[in-house]
Amino acid sequence: MKNVNNSKLKIIPLGGLEQIGMNITAFEFEESIIVVDCGLSFPEDDMLGIDLVIPDVSYLKDNIDKVKGFVITHGHEDHIGALPYVLKEINAPIYATKLTIGIIDNKLKECNMQRTTKRKVIRHGQSINLGCFRIEFIKTNHSIADASALAIYSPAGTVIHTGDFKVDYTPVFGDAIDLQRFAEIGKKGVLALMCDSTNAERPGFTMSEKTVGKTFDTIFADHRNTRIIIATFASNVDRVQQIINSAYKYGRKVVVEGRSMVNIISTAAELGYLDIPDRTLIDIEQMKNYPDEQMVLITTGSQGESMAALSRMAAGVHRKVSIQPGDTVIFSSNPIPGNEKAVSNVINELSIKGADVIFQDTHVSGHACQEEIKLIYSLVKPKYAIPIHGEYRHLKAQAGLAVSLGIPKENVFIMKSGNVLELDGESAAVIGQVHTGAILVDGLGVGDVGNIVLRDRQHLSEDGILIVVMTLEKYTNNLLSGPDIVSRGFVYVRESEDLLEDARSVVYDALEGCLDHNVSDWGKIKIEIRDTLSDFLWKKTKRSPMILPIIMEV
Amino acid sequence: MKNVNNSKLKIIPLGGLEQIGMNITAFEFEESIIVVDCGLSFPEDDMLGIDLVIPDVSYLKDNIDKVKGFVITHGHEDHIGALPYVLKEINAPIYATKLTIGIIDNKLKECNMQRTTKRKVIRHGQSINLGCFRIEFIKTNHSIADASALAIYSPAGTVIHTGDFKVDYTPVFGDAIDLQRFAEIGKKGVLALMCDSTNAERPGFTMSEKTVGKTFDTIFADHRNTRIIIATFASNVDRVQQIINSAYKYGRKVVVEGRSMVNIISTAAELGYLDIPDRTLIDIEQMKNYPDEQMVLITTGSQGESMAALSRMAAGVHRKVSIQPGDTVIFSSNPIPGNEKAVSNVINELSIKGADVIFQDTHVSGHACQEEIKLIYSLVKPKYAIPIHGEYRHLKAQAGLAVSLGIPKENVFIMKSGNVLELDGESAAVIGQVHTGAILVDGLGVGDVGNIVLRDRQHLSEDGILIVVMTLEKYTNNLLSGPDIVSRGFVYVRESEDLLEDARSVVYDALEGCLDHNVSDWGKIKIEIRDTLSDFLWKKTKRSPMILPIIMEV
Repeated sequence: MKNVNNSKLKIIPLGGLEQIGMNITAFEFEESIIVVDCGLSFPEDDMLGIDLVIPDVSYLKDNIDKVKGFVITHGHEDHIGALPYVLKEINAPIYATKLTIGIIDNKLKECNMQRTTKRKVIRHGQSINLGCFRIEFIKTNHSIADASALAIYSPAGTVIHTGDFKVDYTPVFGDAIDLQRFAEIGKKGVLALMCDSTNAERPGFTMSEKTVGKTFDTIFADHRNTRIIIATFASNVDRVQQIINSAYKYGRKVVVEGRSMVNIISTAAELGYLDIPDRTLIDIEQMKNYPDEQMVLITTGSQGESMAALSRMAAGVHRKVSIQPGDTVIFSSNPIPGNEKAVSNVINELSIKGADVIFQDTHVSGHACQEEIKLIYSLVKPKYAIPIHGEYRHLKAQAGLAVSLGIPKENVFIMKSGNVLELDGESAAVIGQVHTGAILVDGLGVGDVGNIVLRDRQHLSEDGILIVVMTLEKYTNNLLSGPDIVSRGFVYVRESEDLLEDARSVVYDALEGCLDHNVSDWGKIKIEIRDTLSDFLWKKTKRSPMILPIIMEV
Repeated sequence: MKNVNNSKLKIIPLGGLEQIGMNITAFEFEESIIVVDCGLSFPEDDMLGIDLVIPDVSYLKDNIDKVKGFVITHGHEDHIGALPYVLKEINAPIYATKLTIGIIDNKLKECNMQRTTKRKVIRHGQSINLGCFRIEFIKTNHSIADASALAIYSPAGTVIHTGDFKVDYTPVFGDAIDLQRFAEIGKKGVLALMCDSTNAERPGFTMSEKTVGKTFDTIFADHRNTRIIIATFASNVDRVQQIINSAYKYGRKVVVEGRSMVNIISTAAELGYLDIPDRTLIDIEQMKNYPDEQMVLITTGSQGESMAALSRMAAGVHRKVSIQPGDTVIFSSNPIPGNEKAVSNVINELSIKGADVIFQDTHVSGHACQEEIKLIYSLVKPKYAIPIHGEYRHLKAQAGLAVSLGIPKENVFIMKSGNVLELDGESAAVIGQVHTGAILVDGLGVGDVGNIVLRDRQHLSEDGILIVVMTLEKYTNNLLSGPDIVSRGFVYVRESEDLLEDARSVVYDALEGCLDHNVSDWGKIKIEIRDTLSDFLWKKTKRSPMILPIIMEV
């Protein structure tokens, strides 16, 4: 007899809530698994020295024969960034719209993986069959072109996954979100809606991207005599288009600066997502041939990232662009939470160099606010609501909206990574948990930095380290040399010679004490030295550096 | 003949712009110096392990005979926090209003300094004579009671220093800002206005503190059946008063939690700045005697500070308060720039525990927005404008406002720490620079952590440390033991035994190479080992840990 559970759909987020950005969700029905998105996350403040965080996909590896493919909603790092790592373990084909595939192609090329991975471009409105799933791509709007929602048809029912989206009735490029299709599918009956929660705490409606174009026109009209430098997200192709439009209108040449910006713009232009008038784009080397008032620079660095082009200009270390008094610098972006201070520091540096910094009304969000979320719920009318994308507070805010629209509280699921939600038209429940986790990437190392290493880095960063070295004679334990103390990150040594000299005496006495009492176990000697020295330093300085006793044997 | 320069007033900020919060300004005329405020700053992100930052007051020490006293505008840490450190070097009397002196007294008591320092309480409207200066205290409004602006009368003219201020026509406690007095002094002629710039980028007018009281009433009315927990700034006595008012109105008892909150509230109540109805305030131990819906907790932690009471409740490690589903938690505060992420993390933790978190309309700023700044300029009509308090971008924004009000551009001075502005009715110019700086406090150490130590901590925090130890024989340089490698914060050792074993061979080969080539200088051997190992590790891991070779001699 067939297992009853097998006739239900399983939805399993393999990342997301605990590590914002690591968007990856498995949909499983009997012998088929599809994976929606495969994002990476950036390290939290306490992940010292970590470059990236990627999802642990053990569950997919354990079920590798079931995995039919990766279905990607759009080309942002938090939806595609982990692909190069995950594909090494699970080499399944990738399905996405044209620009998304173009951006993924760039990424795979960098890792020399473009020949080993199948990619297929899907049009909006088109469907693909993967195992027992059919997946339809539905046009949406977002801060990157070619974003899609997914209608995931399974034998247990239909799930709509919005990806990241907003409702833009007047998009800069292409069509508005296909609200009719949402309604049509909704009318036929939708089991569950997985909807973007990023802006679920914000009342109202996100403004159209086109409103930013109008602001640019006004700023260009008001600043005819200065150079204009605009920082924005590399992937916001529509934003770049509008800057190019204003530049062309006001007779300016455009220079693009910053590696990721150059990459995305060339991909977007190649694939037809950007319309650049002839002779508008010039190389940074040609900048010197034009007066300032005929130049626009589009640059990375809108988040205050220390290595990005704008930050280097602000700090006066950019090789080709120096900020001059009178430059107009526009932040066409909002700081992502956590970046506020870095952005403010860059604004201050630019101001000190005499630039006029503008950061108001030059950005709109790419995510749906409360009224848009309500609109989607009202078109789709799902039985179950599964808020996705955002911190817990945002998911909870969307849960509140869902309940306010009449969805019973018990039909709303805020899922943690690894939760297995089993559902069909009859019922839905979290029935278990699979192994998930965040894998830290540091340099070439994937997963070799764990909690102990991070805790050590934290400790080292706060109070530094004291290394106590001594050489003991084999068998006799006679002290042959040392104890010597070397410190790093503790105190400036020249100013604290006395302190370290006293510390050396303390260690010497502790060691003598051990040997006098015939303590010959090195582990015990080390602990005694560490504890005694630690007490001494705390008393003297109210600090607790890491103390590392090393005994050499001769 | 008298030196002409001596008949001018000198204004010298000894902190501020480069280290926000470290507000301290010297006013010098001939043989008299007065110091306005003496604040501390909190460490920037790159000041790893640092607790506090205080101003270098070498200039005052070098002119100690001239220093007549400290004049303090209000009791916030960024205006009084460095007093215990600075008073140890310059023991001059302190002048301030009653609550400000009360808060300073607490601080001095903690440092056992209350007997060595003279303090004098000044009333609003009262003046004091210090050397050739007369200083008048003028009533203002701010997010702490008893804030003052100062009219500083010198033989060269009058300077008005607003301190931190806002215009509140309907303050919770005491009088509104004394606008008439600003006008009166302005009418007589003001040389320079030093005005708070914190909100100079914000259009409009800051709302009255009283509006928050109304919001509290609404929230209390809407949440009659749950416990209410409110986090706010300890020093915002008026805010606490309004919470107590709402609590009393809705029949709730109030518990105060968090050391700084308890301290300030008891000082404020003692001095008559808080009106607490009988039997309203209860001890945290009595909480269990009342049902949840009769309780309000006022707590520290509104900035997400990891050790503060609310953060400990959110993390589930507070000894006496556990967050329960249904608790209403109000953030009566805005995140200070840089704290956004920490606050958001606390909100998420509270939400996960089932609390209902409210953070809208429950805070107003304590600083003047653009219309208030324009009002003060229009009443005072200064010859010179010296924007103070804020980052460069804020000072620049106020400079723009001053120019828009008709002050010539060349009469507006954005001053850096140590700049000496010399001015009188005829002219004003920055004529020099005195030594200033930020002194880092780490534990008991004041100034013993410098750039080298911080750079080491940064390096250690990113990639950890490898210590390479070996024992060589005196004279012969024969290797007697080692090389051993110990690492901390680099990789998790059990997973990387091979890597460290290979590293050991690399070191061994480098050492052998040195000895074979008769390199016997230990410095050179260490450099060779470090460089070789560093290359090896970069190639293998793309990381650059700190490498510390130690040679023991037997």
